[in-house]
Amino acid sequence: MKISSSDATKPVINLDQGDPTALQEYWMSTKMKERCVVVIPGWELMSYFSDKTNVCWFLQQDLAEAIKALHCEIGNAATEERYIVVGNGSSQLCQAALFALSSLSEDKPLSIVAAVPYYSTYEEEASYVQSQLYKWEGDARTFNKPGPYIEMVTSPNNPDGTIREPVVNRGGKVIYDFAYYWPHYTPITHRQDHDIMLFTFSKIAGHAGSRIGWALVKDIEVAKKMVQYLTINSIGVSKESQIRATVILNELTKSCRIKSESFFEYGNEKVKSRWESLRWVVDKTGDTFTLPDYPLAFCNFFGKSSSTYPAFAWLGCNEDKDLESLLKEKYVLTRGGERCGSDKKYVRVNMLGPNKDFEDFLNRLLTIKYPNCFEGIPCFEP
Amino acid sequence: MKISSSDATKPVINLDQGDPTALQEYWMSTKMKERCVVVIPGWELMSYFSDKTNVCWFLQQDLAEAIKALHCEIGNAATEERYIVVGNGSSQLCQAALFALSSLSEDKPLSIVAAVPYYSTYEEEASYVQSQLYKWEGDARTFNKPGPYIEMVTSPNNPDGTIREPVVNRGGKVIYDFAYYWPHYTPITHRQDHDIMLFTFSKIAGHAGSRIGWALVKDIEVAKKMVQYLTINSIGVSKESQIRATVILNELTKSCRIKSESFFEYGNEKVKSRWESLRWVVDKTGDTFTLPDYPLAFCNFFGKSSSTYPAFAWLGCNEDKDLESLLKEKYVLTRGGERCGSDKKYVRVNMLGPNKDFEDFLNRLLTIKYPNCFEGIPCFEP
Repeated sequence: MKISSSDATKPVINLDQGDPTALQEYWMSTKMKERCVVVIPGWELMSYFSDKTNVCWFLQQDLAEAIKALHCEIGNAATEERYIVVGNGSSQLCQAALFALSSLSEDKPLSIVAAVPYYSTYEEEASYVQSQLYKWEGDARTFNKPGPYIEMVTSPNNPDGTIREPVVNRGGKVIYDFAYYWPHYTPITHRQDHDIMLFTFSKIAGHAGSRIGWALVKDIEVAKKMVQYLTINSIGVSKESQIRATVILNELTKSCRIKSESFFEYGNEKVKSRWESLRWVVDKTGDTFTLPDYPLAFCNFFGKSSSTYPAFAWLGCNEDKDLESLLKEKYVLTRGGERCGSDKKYVRVNMLGPNKDFEDFLNRLLTIKYPNCFEGIPCFEP
Repeated sequence: MKISSSDATKPVINLDQGDPTALQEYWMSTKMKERCVVVIPGWELMSYFSDKTNVCWFLQQDLAEAIKALHCEIGNAATEERYIVVGNGSSQLCQAALFALSSLSEDKPLSIVAAVPYYSTYEEEASYVQSQLYKWEGDARTFNKPGPYIEMVTSPNNPDGTIREPVVNRGGKVIYDFAYYWPHYTPITHRQDHDIMLFTFSKIAGHAGSRIGWALVKDIEVAKKMVQYLTINSIGVSKESQIRATVILNELTKSCRIKSESFFEYGNEKVKSRWESLRWVVDKTGDTFTLPDYPLAFCNFFGKSSSTYPAFAWLGCNEDKDLESLLKEKYVLTRGGERCGSDKKYVRVNMLGPNKDFEDFLNRLLTIKYPNCFEGIPCFEP
């Protein structure tokens, strides 16, 4: 079925990509609107270089400081004795890490695996240029090739929000993707302390358009190889975006302990209330749909017990249906479970779309169970 | 020989990379200093998307308009019936084009060639991930493998400033890199009109830190595949950099016909005077060094005959010496000719470094011929 957004009576809701536009309302609030304005004169930031003495020579020193300060305040990752490598989003950094680890490995191609369901983009990143350095081998749980490998571990996981650890455990390299290990999404139970950890600006404060990510890397040889990748691939990273990320990360750090101002308090309330609405609707549809349950855990940052409220919902249906197609009939675009190495009875749904899209999505979910929903109850009202 | 920039008596001059910092003085002038200031509020530019209906969905529409307006005013490239693909610099776009053309080709790996001396980065870009889609085959002039191929044509050429056409001419694909086809560097003799043309913001106005490049692409399938590469590689391009490039390109367009304000008048004077100084020094050293000669041609933009004043000097020495090492002994870093597929008697010298670096470089060149130069004549005085 081809659907077009020009269908005025039933506009298409795109919840396939993870565009975090919901978080914009924080930055547009009366309190925030005048803050974090970045002013760049025409003569500034013209050089390729930021700091020629740094391994990551295109990293703005102020951004490095802002990253360290935020991790320190939130307590989600160790930054001591690590190299910070900045990238055009964490996707590019993931590819830089694959390049670095495989270049430094004697065995090539190096196997790349991730436990199902995995972030669909990993498969694309590891496959599209058909590199002879590494090879996508799919599900980590069924992986049994001998020799070195790289396991991608995303925690909380994209798409299903679960807290993850490596599953292969045969001495291979692990790239930890902590895009969602921030207190609005999940309890900060401990300070992560691994060899390669990826973070992205997009999913913290919602600034996906800036394309800023960073890696915390222990081994200087790995850091150097990652920088080599970024140098050949794009000769570094936009200075304008780095400057802006610096200002915004510093604001997050400064206000994160002030309850009425903290972005993380706001963000946690936002995703939590969306999850409560979604669970209400799924509950109202009886046994039509499924959602994962997340355990409570003590969050060191908030100082209280909390559940996980992922940026994506991993929605399933109890019957053996193609849920992506079913939702497409309702003009809702989601990412089918098969793309994540899983089953078509699951879809990944962006939980951070615009308010109106989210409400319309909930109502369309209800109409799958109650086709006459709009003529009666239990229509969802936020 | 290891040299360190901490040697206070003889600071290292780095003219290896092409950092265009000389052009900053235009933007810092009293006339320009207050112009082209970009102001970005915290809540702006947050989405991944710029225009979901555009093939290049992450391209800001205003930037597309600014690019078309500037090409139209300068007359250096046709933009009609073409797709604009924006990238994190033209390096990333070059790799996107290699990916696109090879993905769409039945024969793989596709051979990649460029006539010697070539931009050393092409070899790295075509080799580093060891793709099975394409393979670097070196010098286009000696290339005789049957079957499809891609030829990189850079005009004016990096590193030697010559005006170039394809040399293989067996029906292969050509990627035209027009980084330097702007009136401050070379006469604009005609409007380029090819299937794939690359441009970079870095070498126009000197804003290398912004990492903005664009491709003008005729075939929608090629454009789509390039966008696919950029989507997987970095999920698009910094919106902050796009906004800033828009403002600066619009300023270039607006003022380019006002002689006292035109960036291109300024830039042409700047590189021309540097070339005159360099030729004076080379002349003073007798037959020690060589420089290419460039023919005069009528520039449609300036409305008069002019020579080419490349952003790099392709300096040679008449004896069979390793010129890169010779200059390194004088604490001048350049790019050795062998990296460009040529001979070690040549080096590529950045002509757009800071004023002081350029003057010191000229004096150190003189000391190779006249070791006692600083005690007498003919010391170079700008």
